[in-house]
Amino acid sequence: MDTSERLLTRNFSVQRVERGAAERLTDTVAVEEPLAIRLEYWTKDRRVADSLAVTMRTPGQDRELAAGFLVSEGIVRQKREIVHVRSIGTEPSNEIVLELAHGVDVETWRTERAAFVSAGCGICGKRSREAVSGEIPPPQMDALRVDRSLIEKLPALLEARQQGFASTGGLHAAALLTQDGCVERVFEDIGRHNALDKLIGWCLLNDDLPLRDALLFLSSRSSFELVQKCAMAGARVLATVGGPSSLAIEAAREYGVTLIGFVRTSRFNVYSGEWRINL
Amino acid sequence: MDTSERLLTRNFSVQRVERGAAERLTDTVAVEEPLAIRLEYWTKDRRVADSLAVTMRTPGQDRELAAGFLVSEGIVRQKREIVHVRSIGTEPSNEIVLELAHGVDVETWRTERAAFVSAGCGICGKRSREAVSGEIPPPQMDALRVDRSLIEKLPALLEARQQGFASTGGLHAAALLTQDGCVERVFEDIGRHNALDKLIGWCLLNDDLPLRDALLFLSSRSSFELVQKCAMAGARVLATVGGPSSLAIEAAREYGVTLIGFVRTSRFNVYSGEWRINL
Repeated sequence: MDTSERLLTRNFSVQRVERGAAERLTDTVAVEEPLAIRLEYWTKDRRVADSLAVTMRTPGQDRELAAGFLVSEGIVRQKREIVHVRSIGTEPSNEIVLELAHGVDVETWRTERAAFVSAGCGICGKRSREAVSGEIPPPQMDALRVDRSLIEKLPALLEARQQGFASTGGLHAAALLTQDGCVERVFEDIGRHNALDKLIGWCLLNDDLPLRDALLFLSSRSSFELVQKCAMAGARVLATVGGPSSLAIEAAREYGVTLIGFVRTSRFNVYSGEWRINL
Repeated sequence: MDTSERLLTRNFSVQRVERGAAERLTDTVAVEEPLAIRLEYWTKDRRVADSLAVTMRTPGQDRELAAGFLVSEGIVRQKREIVHVRSIGTEPSNEIVLELAHGVDVETWRTERAAFVSAGCGICGKRSREAVSGEIPPPQMDALRVDRSLIEKLPALLEARQQGFASTGGLHAAALLTQDGCVERVFEDIGRHNALDKLIGWCLLNDDLPLRDALLFLSSRSSFELVQKCAMAGARVLATVGGPSSLAIEAAREYGVTLIGFVRTSRFNVYSGEWRINL
């Protein structure tokens, strides 16, 4: 078990009951802990230190998670907008501070966000769908194409790289692949939205946004929020093991994202943008 | 298809690719739409109308969802604290207003909540774990016992009642059962937290809280947030199809909730409070 797996999972003593017989054994469980994301940014005349969010996540790639969360929220779009990232306290830490560059306009973001009160899950802290769509570049016919054979290989490619899921059954994964089927990175988290934010943040910190030529594959279902995160990162193809919600389909069609669901070794459904798939 | 199923699912034209052959067909998908929850309440000297939250949910039991959300948040605990619930606009509406009784202290709740900034998923708009634990009655040895045979029957009982999942594969379910195995109600939603809030809200509106003798069964994994919602509703037994997170187990042990995971026809794991289970 390497360092990252130690952060992903923890052992608990549990009682297993099987065919009426109880035994005590050790179960490996996905770790869930809160992460407080704090910002340091500039207004016209002063420096501000402020809390942005608390998210329940699986520890491990907190820098990436925090950076990706800022991309998904529309606060930053490029690596140079984040000057420095630091954890507070001893590792593994549950508090992270992102120092933003001059010119990153957090105040306007806060004002717009306040206009769209949100506390439930799904569009937490997010402006309305209409407000966000305005920031997403209009869909264009582009040159990105994905071969059917690659889509059919996705379940096997992901399974080979999902270390946390294999031991717990409780972690979602987000995989970043190139057009020719190379798995660049896999990120795991108890929350599917966190797994995707980690992936997007990793790309941002590598100065790899927007994700024009990538294929994203998630172990989960797809929701409006996940399609929106993809679109904010400039990604054009999202495939998932589970099915989409109605609003995931509608958002994908609106944003020009190719949305693929129920991906299995011999079949899949295409809900949007099927012109990008080479049959 | 009855009214409730029409709200749960919607048909989309999709391209299905199977063994290289593409065909166009109609797919039934779980509906996801935003619900704005608004409050009307009293401060010392005036009446206030204000937005509380926007949650992405599957339409259908919005009164129950909104009421349950208020219980989970610790704003109300009893039916009489909600004077009136009304939808805005034509049905199905995406905006609901809850009129609260004199004496429901929303201001203090807002102040405490602001002290715990949150925008990520999982503990959206929730005070800290410590703050919430203070409101949950300390665990006591009680008389509630659950037979092993009932736990083993849960998957079959739920499957028979999950109409939306059968057609979409994209909905979670929360079931309320009596100690003797009677399924009182099943609530479905794209979000597991919403399905549980609908169940809790239904109990509140029937003046049935706290849920001292009930068994709750969810089709999902369990997280800290779900255990916390159960505890806020006074429920003492939570069983799930999937596994728990580390913090779900820790919260269940702290709150005295019996937490059961990986429920199958012939086996299950008990993570907390196994003394309530009759083997």
